[in-house]
This record gives sequence, structure tokens and C-alpha cells, in this order.
Amino acid sequence: MRKIHVIGIGAGDPDQLTLQAVKALRDTEVFFILDKGEVKADLVRLRRDILGTHLPQGTYRTVEARDPERDRTAEGAGYSPAVGDWRSARAGVFERLIAGELGEDGTGAFLVWGDPSLYDSTLGVLEEVLERGAVAFEYDVVPGISSVSSLAARHRTGLNRVARPVQITTGRRLAEGLPEGVDDVVVMLDAHQTFQRYADTGEDIDIYWGAYLGTPDEILVSGPLAETAPHIIEVRAQAREHKGWIMDTYLLRRRPRDEGASGPG
Amino acid sequence: MRKIHVIGIGAGDPDQLTLQAVKALRDTEVFFILDKGEVKADLVRLRRDILGTHLPQGTYRTVEARDPERDRTAEGAGYSPAVGDWRSARAGVFERLIAGELGEDGTGAFLVWGDPSLYDSTLGVLEEVLERGAVAFEYDVVPGISSVSSLAARHRTGLNRVARPVQITTGRRLAEGLPEGVDDVVVMLDAHQTFQRYADTGEDIDIYWGAYLGTPDEILVSGPLAETAPHIIEVRAQAREHKGWIMDTYLLRRRPRDEGASGPG
Ligand SMILES: C[S@@+](CC[C@H](N)C(=O)[O-])C[C@H]1O[C@@H](n2cnc3c(N)ncnc32)[C@H](O)[C@@H]1O
Ligand SMILES: C[S@@+](CC[C@H](N)C(=O)[O-])C[C@H]1O[C@@H](n2cnc3c(N)ncnc32)[C@H](O)[C@@H]1O
Repeated sequence: MRKIHVIGIGAGDPDQLTLQAVKALRDTEVFFILDKGEVKADLVRLRRDILGTHLPQGTYRTVEARDPERDRTAEGAGYSPAVGDWRSARAGVFERLIAGELGEDGTGAFLVWGDPSLYDSTLGVLEEVLERGAVAFEYDVVPGISSVSSLAARHRTGLNRVARPVQITTGRRLAEGLPEGVDDVVVMLDAHQTFQRYADTGEDIDIYWGAYLGTPDEILVSGPLAETAPHIIEVRAQAREHKGWIMDTYLLRRRPRDEGASGPG
Repeated sequence: MRKIHVIGIGAGDPDQLTLQAVKALRDTEVFFILDKGEVKADLVRLRRDILGTHLPQGTYRTVEARDPERDRTAEGAGYSPAVGDWRSARAGVFERLIAGELGEDGTGAFLVWGDPSLYDSTLGVLEEVLERGAVAFEYDVVPGISSVSSLAARHRTGLNRVARPVQITTGRRLAEGLPEGVDDVVVMLDAHQTFQRYADTGEDIDIYWGAYLGTPDEILVSGPLAETAPHIIEVRAQAREHKGWIMDTYLLRRRPRDEGASGPG
């Protein structure tokens, strides 16, 4: 039976690999590397560096394929209504890779940015490949450090406050309003600096923002949203211009009306 | 200047340590191990095993202290209204450990279960120690694999569905109702199997439940909530009786009314 590891590799720092991930790398013969276009060349390079660091040359193969998925992380991205279409296109690519590049008892791997459980389609696509029934395989998942955990660690803050919930959402959703009943909101996939909308509402909100987390280009900014938002917008535009792409995440923390307590717990 | 590492060690599997965590362990002279009572003896042992595996004997010291925090993770636990009190008591303990056990330029560490950003008070307590002003130190945070990431990986599912949010909350909060506007809800710190309340509401909810994740005693159950809830309650009661304590987490996934799509993305 063919075997696939879906390996979370952390969100930028190669040292965020877990020991379990290193073992899974060593157990793999063929790595499938999906190329998402030029802006992601840096990220493909990071994957190759990770392999080079942990595996003796000649013990593995890499196979590259063009990822039909449109780029949802970089500027200008969003979800197309036809999410199902790119997923099917992707399933076709995965199917060809697994059937064509792995022997009957071969072991392959997909390296997933951050943690495979957050805003990543790899698991859904693998399920679709299995449903099609053209190629059979087993797969397992190695969790990784997400950009969310990385953001919190670098700002040295908890995500939740004592006994309170935290919500993880997208820029698109945030544009529809701050979620109800939750005062700590992590925003990913935001190409439009949606936090701006909440800078002048008079609400008491702090922002903890991070870009290129875990990489040498990491930028961190935090403070009261009203004062900090213009600064983040400037810093972000400059960084994006300079590097050609940006990946950023942030936590919005609203002071609850019923209490003054803060800090993680 | 004294230095403190707050190191996320993963939620049960010693191989969930990151390379960055291993480096931080090796940089540490004194480990502060807080003992939370007998039910946690297993967890203290795991911490000691991690140290023994990664560090040559004689290169470090461990100092144990009784944690004044009441046990919030085991059965029967909940948040006392006097959260501030135990935090202060804890700050006193931390202060004594850091001032008394670390030299002026010494490096100490706290090993935090899972990821330090989720329902853990270590960062808040360290901030309180700094505010008191009796001892000065620098500190950094090493992110870890949370029980949430671990749960998702073991069930091979995403936490969110395509372009949708996910909320992480507590059993206490869930008892007040399913949160609004979000259909994927991860529940931690639930001593009362609160999911039961939603088993017979006629809503289309799936549950992905995991106990002792990442350990040899790991248990996974998933399925439609209505059918699966009684089974989980039985399995959980047996396991708890057998082991003396339990740690469990689950994802509730409500099928959104407006669409039939599912799977991560
Ligand atoms: C498609 S999602 C994948 C998330 C990934 N699975 C994880 O666990 O972080 C991409 C989004 O993650 C966030 N992100 C990923 N890596 C990041 C980094 N190094 N710094 C800041 N944000 C990052 C950004 O919000 C980006 O839009
Ligand atoms: C005080 S919180 C700490 C969470 C931790 N910081 C993390 O990142 O997982 C303890 C709760 O985490 C969950 N938990 C921690 N470890 C777990 C494990 N190995 N299996 C299942 N649930 C776990 C349980 O819901 C438990 O009540």
C-alpha cells in the first residue's frame, strides 16, 4: 500500500520542525513540492533547505508540480466562489503525482506550511483523491507550529484571556463585522488590512500584528489599534514593496465591557 | 540579566518537541517544575523524561515547587471566581524560584504543556512577577504543538472549513450555548461532557473527540454527535476510572444551513 505523510513544517522558522516531523521526513522517499508561482519561490526554497538540512543527499527525490490553486495568501487574494473547482483540479494533480511517482509500497510526503489544520486544503484534497478511487493509499498527519502560535509566542501573549474563547477567522469574514461574543480574534488571509475598519469605532481594541513570522524578515508591531493601525499600514506597504509579497497575521483583542482583567490564562 | 525560556513541549508526545524547543532546553541551567498534585504525577514524569532524553546528565538542575493553582484540567475542575488570587499566589512562587535559584546571569525555563498561548497562565504570571519589581529578568517564548493541533492531526481533519472561522472555547462557555456565527468549535477544559447538551437538539453536528492525545493511552472517537455522545461518555468514564484522571478535547462541527460543503480548506 502507498503511504503519504502530510507534514506540518511550521510557519517560517526551520527550527519549528518537530522531532516527529523530522522522523517523517526521514521515512519519505518522494517529496511532492507544489509551486504556487513566483511570489512563493522563497517558500519553495525554504522547503528545499529543510530537506537538505535533515536528509542525506541521494536518499530522497523531490517532484515539483504546478499548483492549480490560486494564491490565496498574497495580496489581492480572496476566495473564489468556485472553491470546489480548484480543489478538483488539485485532486487531479495529486492523483497523478501519487499514482505516477510512487511505487506500490512507496512513501511520499506533502510539506504543509504551518499546521495542516488551519486554512490548508491538503487534507481535503487527499480525501477527494481517495473518493475518486483511481489510486489507493494510507495517510497520516504530523501537526506543525501554526503562524497563529508563532504570532502569540513572538508577542509573548496568550491567544485567549482567562476562561474566555478565541476565534480564528479570515480577513473576508472580519469585513462582515467583529464576531459576536468573543473578544480575542486572530485574523489570517487578510489582503486588505481589514483591521482598519475597527480603528475608529471608539472601541478599546489592541492589535498584535506579525509579518514573515519566524523568518529573518519578521516584523512585529503591537499597541492600541487606533494609534497603531496607520503605522502597520505603512510598514506593511513598504515591506511588501521591498520583498514583492507579504504574509501577515494579527490578533485583535477587545477589552471586554464587563471586566478590566487582561493577560493570558 | 537573568533569562527565562517559556517552552511549549507539545501535548503528550515527546516527539512533538520542536528543534527550537530542544535548543532552548540545552540553553537552560535550571528547570522549574511545578507539581499540580497527584493526578498530574504522570505529566511531571513526562517532563523529566523529556529532559533526560535531550540533555546529558549533570548539565542541568531541576527545582520542584508546589503549584498553588487549583487543577483546572482534571475532572471536577472549573474556574474559581478568584482567578486573580491564585495568579498572585503563583507569582509569589515564581518570584521565589527565579530570585532564589538563578544566579544574576543564570538561565531558567518553564516547560509548558502544549502551546503556551492556549489556556495557560505562565506568561501572565511572569508579567505579574515583573510588575512586582522584586526580580528582573528577560524572557522568551517557544511555541509548542497544542492539544488542538494534535486533535486535528489525529483525526486528519482541518479545524476550519473553507473560508470559515473556528472558535476555541471552554466547557464552561459551551454550557452557555453554541457560539453564534461559527460552526466549528473546539472545546477544552470541559469536565462535564458539555457536548451532551447538543446531542438531541436536532442540529446536524459531528464530534471529533480525543483523550490523552499523543500518549500511549490516546483514545479517538468521531461521528455524528447524536449517535456518538453516549459512546464517548461511556469510554471517557471507563478511561478516567482506570487511569485516575483524564484530559480530553473535542471539535464540534455543525453543518452550516446555507451549504453542504465540508472538509478543511
Ligand atoms: C493559507 S493560510 C495557511 C496557514 C498555515 N496552515 C498555518 O498554520 O499558519 C496562509 C495565511 O497564514 C498566515 N501566515 C502563514 N505564515 C505566516 C508567517 N510566517 N507570518 C505571518 N503570517 C503567516 C497569513 O495570514 C497567511 O495569509
Ligand atoms: C489548561 S489547558 C492547557 C492547554 C495547552 N496549553 C495546550 O496547548 O494544549 C488543559 C486542557 O487542554 C486539553 N488537553 C491538553 N492536553 C491534552 C491531551 N494530551 N489530550 C487531550 N486534551 C488535552 C484538555 O482540554 C485540557 O482540559
